[in-house]
Amino acid sequence: MEVVRKNFKETLPLVKESIDKADFLAIDTEFTGLMNGRDVTIFDSPEDYYIRLMNGSSEFLLIQFGMSCFYWDEKRNHYLNDTYNFYLYPRGRPGPDRLFLCQSSSLDFLASNGFDFNKLIREGISYMTSTTETKLRENLAERQLSYSKEKEAVRIPDENRQQIEDICTKVKHFIEKSTDAEMEINRCNSFIRMLLFQELKLRFKDEIIVDTKVLENKNRILKVIRKTADMDDQDTLRKKKEWDELEEAVGFSKVAQMISQSEKLIVGHNMLLDVLHTLGHFFQQLPPDYASFKEFTHCMFPKLLDTKYMSSLPPFKDKLGSSVLTELLSTLGEPPFSLPKIGSRQGRGYSHLDDKEHEAGYDAYITGLCFLAMHAHLARMRGEESDRVVPQSVTLKPFLNKLFLAKTARQDSPYINLVGSEPTPPRDHVFHLVFPKEWQRNDLSQLFSPFGAVTVYFLDECSAFVGLDQRDQAPDVMRALAKNNRVTLTPYYKYKSGGSGSGGSDNEVLYSLLL
Amino acid sequence: MEVVRKNFKETLPLVKESIDKADFLAIDTEFTGLMNGRDVTIFDSPEDYYIRLMNGSSEFLLIQFGMSCFYWDEKRNHYLNDTYNFYLYPRGRPGPDRLFLCQSSSLDFLASNGFDFNKLIREGISYMTSTTETKLRENLAERQLSYSKEKEAVRIPDENRQQIEDICTKVKHFIEKSTDAEMEINRCNSFIRMLLFQELKLRFKDEIIVDTKVLENKNRILKVIRKTADMDDQDTLRKKKEWDELEEAVGFSKVAQMISQSEKLIVGHNMLLDVLHTLGHFFQQLPPDYASFKEFTHCMFPKLLDTKYMSSLPPFKDKLGSSVLTELLSTLGEPPFSLPKIGSRQGRGYSHLDDKEHEAGYDAYITGLCFLAMHAHLARMRGEESDRVVPQSVTLKPFLNKLFLAKTARQDSPYINLVGSEPTPPRDHVFHLVFPKEWQRNDLSQLFSPFGAVTVYFLDECSAFVGLDQRDQAPDVMRALAKNNRVTLTPYYKYKSGGSGSGGSDNEVLYSLLL
Repeated sequence: MEVVRKNFKETLPLVKESIDKADFLAIDTEFTGLMNGRDVTIFDSPEDYYIRLMNGSSEFLLIQFGMSCFYWDEKRNHYLNDTYNFYLYPRGRPGPDRLFLCQSSSLDFLASNGFDFNKLIREGISYMTSTTETKLRENLAERQLSYSKEKEAVRIPDENRQQIEDICTKVKHFIEKSTDAEMEINRCNSFIRMLLFQELKLRFKDEIIVDTKVLENKNRILKVIRKTADMDDQDTLRKKKEWDELEEAVGFSKVAQMISQSEKLIVGHNMLLDVLHTLGHFFQQLPPDYASFKEFTHCMFPKLLDTKYMSSLPPFKDKLGSSVLTELLSTLGEPPFSLPKIGSRQGRGYSHLDDKEHEAGYDAYITGLCFLAMHAHLARMRGEESDRVVPQSVTLKPFLNKLFLAKTARQDSPYINLVGSEPTPPRDHVFHLVFPKEWQRNDLSQLFSPFGAVTVYFLDECSAFVGLDQRDQAPDVMRALAKNNRVTLTPYYKYKSGGSGSGGSDNEVLYSLLL
Repeated sequence: MEVVRKNFKETLPLVKESIDKADFLAIDTEFTGLMNGRDVTIFDSPEDYYIRLMNGSSEFLLIQFGMSCFYWDEKRNHYLNDTYNFYLYPRGRPGPDRLFLCQSSSLDFLASNGFDFNKLIREGISYMTSTTETKLRENLAERQLSYSKEKEAVRIPDENRQQIEDICTKVKHFIEKSTDAEMEINRCNSFIRMLLFQELKLRFKDEIIVDTKVLENKNRILKVIRKTADMDDQDTLRKKKEWDELEEAVGFSKVAQMISQSEKLIVGHNMLLDVLHTLGHFFQQLPPDYASFKEFTHCMFPKLLDTKYMSSLPPFKDKLGSSVLTELLSTLGEPPFSLPKIGSRQGRGYSHLDDKEHEAGYDAYITGLCFLAMHAHLARMRGEESDRVVPQSVTLKPFLNKLFLAKTARQDSPYINLVGSEPTPPRDHVFHLVFPKEWQRNDLSQLFSPFGAVTVYFLDECSAFVGLDQRDQAPDVMRALAKNNRVTLTPYYKYKSGGSGSGGSDNEVLYSLLL
């Protein structure tokens, strides 16, 4: 079910009901970009990984949030899904006018997969962090206290006096001679509108109410409304309108709060960025230190499960080729696995035949489906009879609250553990190497050939991280290359503790050759 | 005429022809945002104005370029217009993957005026600066030199060996047993594709060509093509494809270069930002100093005319109410002015009845139309017979190469003069004031009441610039308030030379009250 600005308010109670009855929620999100600045390197620790993502992703927007709520149908003995696909766009007034980053390749990718940017900008639901929400509520309450007080008038500059007088005369004519309920005043800039607001209120306070009206093309005009006996006074009307506008601006953050408060099991696929953006957009700025991040995340979402992490462990690891979502879905549809039957009420959910890849709602649904197929496989292995998910069961325990780290998984930093410490894989076998600009990959291999094969991660055209496949060779490498005057070799830990180095953008040359 | 990616190449010769035969070009552009950080203040000098815009606008994208070419029809004795509306979007590969800023209110505004963001991202024409173009051309030429050389093979990790072997077996089968011209290899990540590229070339170099194919959803697969006798070798095909892709990526910058090289009169309305973005997007990064900016601009566009500046001078100033483009158009349609007759060839131009406000092509056309109406008025006053525009005529000389400064025009910094110095209005009557946080506008007025009326520009909640209407009171103000221990008063020049101060974002409270 697609949710945009115009059906958000009426959909909110349905969303609440879906969350409440669900055994678990699967989520997926889309962003305007992935990484600003240096990317994660393959040797980064889980903490490094978090810090880089936190710094490099926070200025992008989360523009689509998919949530698939899976609830058990006792009668039919299978799951049903209520799935929501929310378009999100942070509007200004009364929310802050946001500046945000986009990455051209990311928007291009989304557009190729059918993302509707016109719908996003015209109909996206607003949102804000809890921090901003609190501040705006306080500000509005305080500002409204002063409405009845008299304010000092802004002086009318000489050059505008005639225009103001002319319009006041027209309004006087409207009050005395016309029978219309309203009149409009257009062709005024914001300064003139402000002066008119002031002058008209001063002169005709008891006869009219003055309001601004935003036309479809965003031009603003003044509306003069004839006061009637049963009409609330201008201040009361205005206060109500302002609170309504604030509620609309808080928007999707209410859904995020519902999800958090439900404490339900939340399933995502490769969900670290989804989690970071969800926290940073709807709750508060991400904490700069790793321990606080874990605590904060666990506090907001006490049961997270990452299907990408799940699929990287036995008994799935060896049976799944690619863990890219759609390919995972294909594999899980073939023996020894099988996809469970999932239903939905008319117009409320997806089927896996919908083929709307990279639409957040669809991807959330597919994630839930893959999770159920893996869960059923585990349950069968354990001889359990029901396919129903019990979040606190021993079956799921090994997978809970661990977020997969796709870019360092091959180098033994496979996950973030939100409720404990992770393995800290040694980096004794890794070196930072500075080499002559004209060197190529094979010069590096040549240099290290006495010590076996190496994994090279280029930082720029004259520096790289080099990891030895034969880790025990590390002391020999240091000894042998210390005197080489064409290269500078620094053990990884020493390099890291010496600060971030001189910069230059990363080029993961290893994977980008020709392709 | 709308120009997007798919009709760009065929339209380019038409564009060239339109520019060549035009008496003048009117332009307009649309951006993803206006200002990042502190805005111009009403007391800024033209140089300050440039520096702030240069720093605050450069990360936004120019997403639509409108150009209306007005050429004279000798037979009918009036102008015709060829008008182009270009959607622009900087694609990655082979161009750089761009990170850019958006301002939520700006996109919202464009969307409300019918801007099609899906068309932008799916069909926008690419572009790049001349600097990037030169670098990419050099890089590509250099890279292509190395294609024939053997490169050191990337080692196949043990875990991928079986998969590679399986696919090689399938390709062997395709070569020997199949009669198809092509086969596709999918479900491979980029690393596997790279290994396959390498292995397939090594084993079947004489029988097949291996290429990557980008599917509509941006997934990449490998295409294995059976080699035929008349087929260029893989390297030649690839080189040609790469140059074609580079030309497409240079894209709209070719039009910008044509405009520059034509040295035609270019007309814009409030055109400073259009000029800055045009230079910064299609030529090179804007220079950090004001003198170089003027020189650079004049060199690229030797004849610029800003209709907003023109309308701010006699004989127009007093006869025009608002100089907002559409309102200017209305006023210029009424006596003592009149809109000239403009025609166009079928499908090639606009009429002013099209009502596509804020579409860059339409706004460019309207700008040209307003310019012609004002030009005709001047010509009539001078008793000239022809309405035809002669860019080097004395009629236009006072308006040439002066860019209007909308935000400081009221405070006597009305324009940038690209070919000389501007008036440098005194700021002796302006002060930087730090005041207690709880103070309101009327506390400030009170403070200055002995010296007459003031213009206040709030910088944040406890500082402002204050300008005296009675300039000769400045020395008295300084004397009188020096000892006031609740406020700190600093003369404007002294404040400016002391650096930019401690920051805080600008709030132009004057114009934002309630509206």
